[in-house]
Amino acid sequence: MGRLSRILNFFSSDKEIKAQLEQVLGFTPKRVAFYRLALMHRSRPDDVTDSNERLEFLGDAFLGAIVAEYLFKKYPYEDEGYLTELRSKIVRRETMNNVALRMGLNKLVVYNTNDRSLGRSHIFGNALEALIGAVYLDQGLEVTRKFILNQLIRPYVDLDMMESTDTNFKNRLLSWAQKNNHTMSFDTLDEKLENTRKLFTVGIMLNGEIIASGTGYNKKDAGQVAAQAALEKLGLNEQK
Amino acid sequence: MGRLSRILNFFSSDKEIKAQLEQVLGFTPKRVAFYRLALMHRSRPDDVTDSNERLEFLGDAFLGAIVAEYLFKKYPYEDEGYLTELRSKIVRRETMNNVALRMGLNKLVVYNTNDRSLGRSHIFGNALEALIGAVYLDQGLEVTRKFILNQLIRPYVDLDMMESTDTNFKNRLLSWAQKNNHTMSFDTLDEKLENTRKLFTVGIMLNGEIIASGTGYNKKDAGQVAAQAALEKLGLNEQK
Repeated sequence: MGRLSRILNFFSSDKEIKAQLEQVLGFTPKRVAFYRLALMHRSRPDDVTDSNERLEFLGDAFLGAIVAEYLFKKYPYEDEGYLTELRSKIVRRETMNNVALRMGLNKLVVYNTNDRSLGRSHIFGNALEALIGAVYLDQGLEVTRKFILNQLIRPYVDLDMMESTDTNFKNRLLSWAQKNNHTMSFDTLDEKLENTRKLFTVGIMLNGEIIASGTGYNKKDAGQVAAQAALEKLGLNEQK
Repeated sequence: MGRLSRILNFFSSDKEIKAQLEQVLGFTPKRVAFYRLALMHRSRPDDVTDSNERLEFLGDAFLGAIVAEYLFKKYPYEDEGYLTELRSKIVRRETMNNVALRMGLNKLVVYNTNDRSLGRSHIFGNALEALIGAVYLDQGLEVTRKFILNQLIRPYVDLDMMESTDTNFKNRLLSWAQKNNHTMSFDTLDEKLENTRKLFTVGIMLNGEIIASGTGYNKKDAGQVAAQAALEKLGLNEQK
């Protein structure tokens, strides 16, 4: 039934597809063939010979570049490590799959709904990347940038939340310690030069004993790594 | 001495820098400040407070996207696995460092020549990525694409050689076997479904015994992985 509707969708007219795409894209597409291909998962009906994987390759690359530029300009005082980490949180498959679902892309992608093994793969996030590739080929960089920023990132990606994910490790650990009347401190155990950069090792003391340590190019990063390790060791690592 | 000339270079006039850059870039840069920053390694003189790492982040992202588009269009019949692998060979630090050296970027980058620990890092390849970032900010996507394709890839990157690196594993192994009068064959040991895709395991028989095996989404890829493993096992893995 779901399968049938999807095949019908695939065979629907350009005019119908355009109308559906317009809602998702925020503009009127020109060359519909690119978009049809972008929405074609490799578990497609057997009579279709192509799928969206090459477009996914292209779209993934421009998603990475456009998000890099966005963060580069939005955070002029953050270093490249910060930018790299924030970007990887935005472009990773889980985030994109979630964005794709919230955009309703699952209603447009053609795939085999009877194949249960697809459950764990990121069909819709991958199709979203392929869609970015289609937009780029159809419309060029400027429209692709607007599509990514205005239709994907701003409405569906909470940058503040992503930025603060890091500091949560430390905060979660400290609030757990306080709640349970433990004495906890973060101590710098080591500083050394790696090439021309200083590398710090920070240890976490729980009631006077080191329970975890972490390494990073600054104390804050090292503390975060250590805190994450400590949460894991204490069995407190599940995300809320 | 080298250090001194580099500092002088850093303090040289915009006009002088523009003339030097023009030779490398193939066009006349507008906003020289971007390029000065791109050529500033973090081992820079102490009186300079910024370095090229943020620009490297930006340039690396656009290098990846532009090379992706180039390969996507150049190889319309190759799948995304092929494109991904070829791209990673082109954009990896070793390749870019080599390109940067052949462009003479080592004469323009400002870094601490007394710091021997920098020897193994890819200062010039990283500076080249930063330069790509500067070109993008100064000139936009079109000029950046032309710069990457006409000044870097076409003159200095041998795509045919990179494409054939793969098949060399199998060829090298077979020609070694022939030369040494060994009987060698590639046999499919296993085929199974992983999600919706077939996964193949190919084994290499040397005089009737399996010496290595490899897995891939097609027999050719699996054979290559197996051949690489076999070369390593036989101590034949050095590149000629």
